[in-house]
Amino acid sequence: MSAPGRLRIVGLGPGADAWITPEASQLIANATDLVGYAPYLERLPPKQGQMRHESGNGAEMERARHALRLAGGGRHVALVSGGDPGVFAMAAAVFEAIEEGEPAWRDIDITVSPGIPAMQAAAARTGAPLGHDFCAISLSDNRKPWALVEKRLSAAATADFVIALYNPASAARPRRIHDAFALLRGLKAPSTPVVFARALGRGDEHIFVETLATADPARADMSTLIIVGSSETRIIPRTSGAPFVYTPRGVKVD
Amino acid sequence: MSAPGRLRIVGLGPGADAWITPEASQLIANATDLVGYAPYLERLPPKQGQMRHESGNGAEMERARHALRLAGGGRHVALVSGGDPGVFAMAAAVFEAIEEGEPAWRDIDITVSPGIPAMQAAAARTGAPLGHDFCAISLSDNRKPWALVEKRLSAAATADFVIALYNPASAARPRRIHDAFALLRGLKAPSTPVVFARALGRGDEHIFVETLATADPARADMSTLIIVGSSETRIIPRTSGAPFVYTPRGVKVD
Repeated sequence: MSAPGRLRIVGLGPGADAWITPEASQLIANATDLVGYAPYLERLPPKQGQMRHESGNGAEMERARHALRLAGGGRHVALVSGGDPGVFAMAAAVFEAIEEGEPAWRDIDITVSPGIPAMQAAAARTGAPLGHDFCAISLSDNRKPWALVEKRLSAAATADFVIALYNPASAARPRRIHDAFALLRGLKAPSTPVVFARALGRGDEHIFVETLATADPARADMSTLIIVGSSETRIIPRTSGAPFVYTPRGVKVD
Repeated sequence: MSAPGRLRIVGLGPGADAWITPEASQLIANATDLVGYAPYLERLPPKQGQMRHESGNGAEMERARHALRLAGGGRHVALVSGGDPGVFAMAAAVFEAIEEGEPAWRDIDITVSPGIPAMQAAAARTGAPLGHDFCAISLSDNRKPWALVEKRLSAAATADFVIALYNPASAARPRRIHDAFALLRGLKAPSTPVVFARALGRGDEHIFVETLATADPARADMSTLIIVGSSETRIIPRTSGAPFVYTPRGVKVD
């Protein structure tokens, strides 16, 4: 029997190294094996004697099982994720793999290390659009019916949440973001602020502030995070640069 | 006219120093003045020549204006917040103060530096309960009518979001969390997993995993973050320690 391994599920935050927590850096430095989607592993400096197991996008379950097999065999594994591993990312895939997999996997020493989520980084870049009650919704219908996405978008808009949209578009389903905007335009004011944040924390980062009336959903790709305001979300114009976007901490009660 | 000042709104994450990003540490080190709620400033090591402006809890607007006045007068200010400053915290208060305040404040050099939000840290401690679509709702009715809180809780439950509850209780309104649980119990299954996370990242951290049927809302205080699962959220029991709680990346489609 081999010595007990361990699995650390680690979030790097979106793009910028200055957003990687000391805990994440330490867990990565201490690992014998790094497992992850290739572009995330490429962000990390090589370390002598440390094994790297790169995989392609979309192969979450196989990546999760590979990490579990390594940890089950005694390795000290860091499974690396962008953003926060708990938000539309690898942590849930690992627990799915555990539940479906070998009973011994349940007792592997596993912890999750949080990272800055993309929506919080997008919010920080523009002000404080997530400053009050908000929802995060993935527009991917790979693993849920589109009717459920519509139900959640409608509920979030009707109850006047700020809405963060993850996975807005892909080559396989380019129309979903258009459908989502059409639905939201039927339920929210045309003046509602909308933020498009692309490639957060990277050299090619772009942030656009629009309104629901003017925003072009075709601008979104899989590297884009979208924030759609509540009825309270406001834009503060400035003479010196991009406007601030924020949602007050409460609603006006007359 | 004084040299231009600047304001950096900085999140420390919840409790643990290992969750403070390098960006946050750098911005704090570079500031001439630190402004914040006393317990957050106490987390930071003293630095010679750096001024500290501590304030009590609940004085957000006055704290925001104080930071803006200092920055407007040429100081390099770090306004320090726990968790993420953009999530039920100081960033929105600053932009409210800007909108109501002196026109010159709009053109102060202001940026926000994101931190690990308490809900993501709570999720990481238990597995991945926020692994799919979720909402964050503040139960404080200081600045919004309770009817709006109820509307948002109902919408979030009916559309089957995972729900993170911030500000669950205070001495001034100890019954609100009981009202919220009564509402959720009418809309969600008794077996729905519920996580109570208290004093995250601190020495006295406590995490409890319950179900909606058994959870006692009286356990929550102002240092507690609560996560209420969706119909898909699952508990994985383990022989060696606390169970994992997670929400799969999709829903089963038959």
